[in-house]
Amino acid sequence: MSEERPLILVSNDDGYSAKGINVLMRVLMEFGDVVVVAPHTGRSGKGCSITSEVPINVWRVSEEPGLTVYACTGTPCDCVKVACHAIVPRRPSLIVGGINHGDNSAVNAHYSGTMGVVIEGCMKGIPSIAFSLCSHDADADFSPTVPYIRSVVEQVLRRGLPSGSCLNVNFPDSKEYAGVKICRQALGEWVNEWEAHEHPRGGRWYWLTGNFDCNESDIDADRVALDNNFVAITPTRIDFTDYRLLDEMKNWNI
Amino acid sequence: MSEERPLILVSNDDGYSAKGINVLMRVLMEFGDVVVVAPHTGRSGKGCSITSEVPINVWRVSEEPGLTVYACTGTPCDCVKVACHAIVPRRPSLIVGGINHGDNSAVNAHYSGTMGVVIEGCMKGIPSIAFSLCSHDADADFSPTVPYIRSVVEQVLRRGLPSGSCLNVNFPDSKEYAGVKICRQALGEWVNEWEAHEHPRGGRWYWLTGNFDCNESDIDADRVALDNNFVAITPTRIDFTDYRLLDEMKNWNI
Repeated sequence: MSEERPLILVSNDDGYSAKGINVLMRVLMEFGDVVVVAPHTGRSGKGCSITSEVPINVWRVSEEPGLTVYACTGTPCDCVKVACHAIVPRRPSLIVGGINHGDNSAVNAHYSGTMGVVIEGCMKGIPSIAFSLCSHDADADFSPTVPYIRSVVEQVLRRGLPSGSCLNVNFPDSKEYAGVKICRQALGEWVNEWEAHEHPRGGRWYWLTGNFDCNESDIDADRVALDNNFVAITPTRIDFTDYRLLDEMKNWNI
Repeated sequence: MSEERPLILVSNDDGYSAKGINVLMRVLMEFGDVVVVAPHTGRSGKGCSITSEVPINVWRVSEEPGLTVYACTGTPCDCVKVACHAIVPRRPSLIVGGINHGDNSAVNAHYSGTMGVVIEGCMKGIPSIAFSLCSHDADADFSPTVPYIRSVVEQVLRRGLPSGSCLNVNFPDSKEYAGVKICRQALGEWVNEWEAHEHPRGGRWYWLTGNFDCNESDIDADRVALDNNFVAITPTRIDFTDYRLLDEMKNWNI
């Protein structure tokens, strides 16, 4: 018997000790051997950033049959990169990010460290899925997400994903969902993004805050699907070329 | 005479004092009033990351007719956000990132702070252009890029860009170019990404390094165009939904 269970690599941007990733790793152990390499602390909003100016460290936090957990001082992308380079015992069959504490729908996927995990996985040619719950509560109830995570993971392990494509799955903050919608990224714009504060020793500092104005009404836009209590699955490409503008610009005279 | 010159907002990820952004701001002053809000130090590889865990500071570094320069402790995206919220005297007609010291072609656009600037600009509905030179030399010769920057900026100011689209312009490290290609993002994969070092006090640390393996040969792929001495202009969308997979997944049973 040399048949091996699938290896599943897991990371996130809330840190290895967050509740969301701990729920996720337990679900994924049903499907294969799980290796977690996740930031040692919160790295929310880190998008696809990578660490080039300082070296990073990675260390084992815990080990049990079928599950090994590492912490890493790098970004979510760094975690996937260093895991694939130096940690996993064989090529992962699947890379999973999450479960994020907070919404990663719409064009906000660009800011998301959870999406950084899966874009990095996708760049390595490995099927990759991000899961996020629309609640920032550290003790959020992730249990309604579990049957849907099982279903998506089972199908991706069986069907695979097209090369260069990954999935961004967002769950409403709700006990029971209206169903599943396969979505596109909603468009929208952040407003009132900063709150100014005077530093005790002088000088004005700005805290990031704000509201996301999404004027979409189409139920196929992920943000709208979530607002209507649907699980939103947004297939995402790493190639974000605008092919329509590409054709049009061939007539520009530069 | 109430007609105002276009306002052009400039940022980068190498910091406000880098040579590339200083070349760029002088060229852009030919087209309008220039406001620079750029990181106070190098923030390469920061992608679309944003700063939510600490407040950021922004201060004026210099002022002359038609040009004001601010430094900011935030990421490239933060710079654009805080500039639009608290600094620019009117809505920018154009947001420009660069000139980056280093290549931002191919799927590496995801890691790029220079692209972070223009993706943020694009999310705000403002035409946005990133310029990068394929040289990391702090004293690189940017002069061959200047006529092309003029041409692209002039046309974008005149024609605009479609909502949700921005431009990623990369220049070969060369004195004279073969011409201009309108490109798609090349695909490829990083290999040998980390170099392990022992810390003097014990423990293994990893420095990010590596080679980008691009097996493409199509001259319309930006990395290939650059290798053939062409200026590569890659039109880029902020919506990176995979619409083909979206249609296909409607037949999945989740």
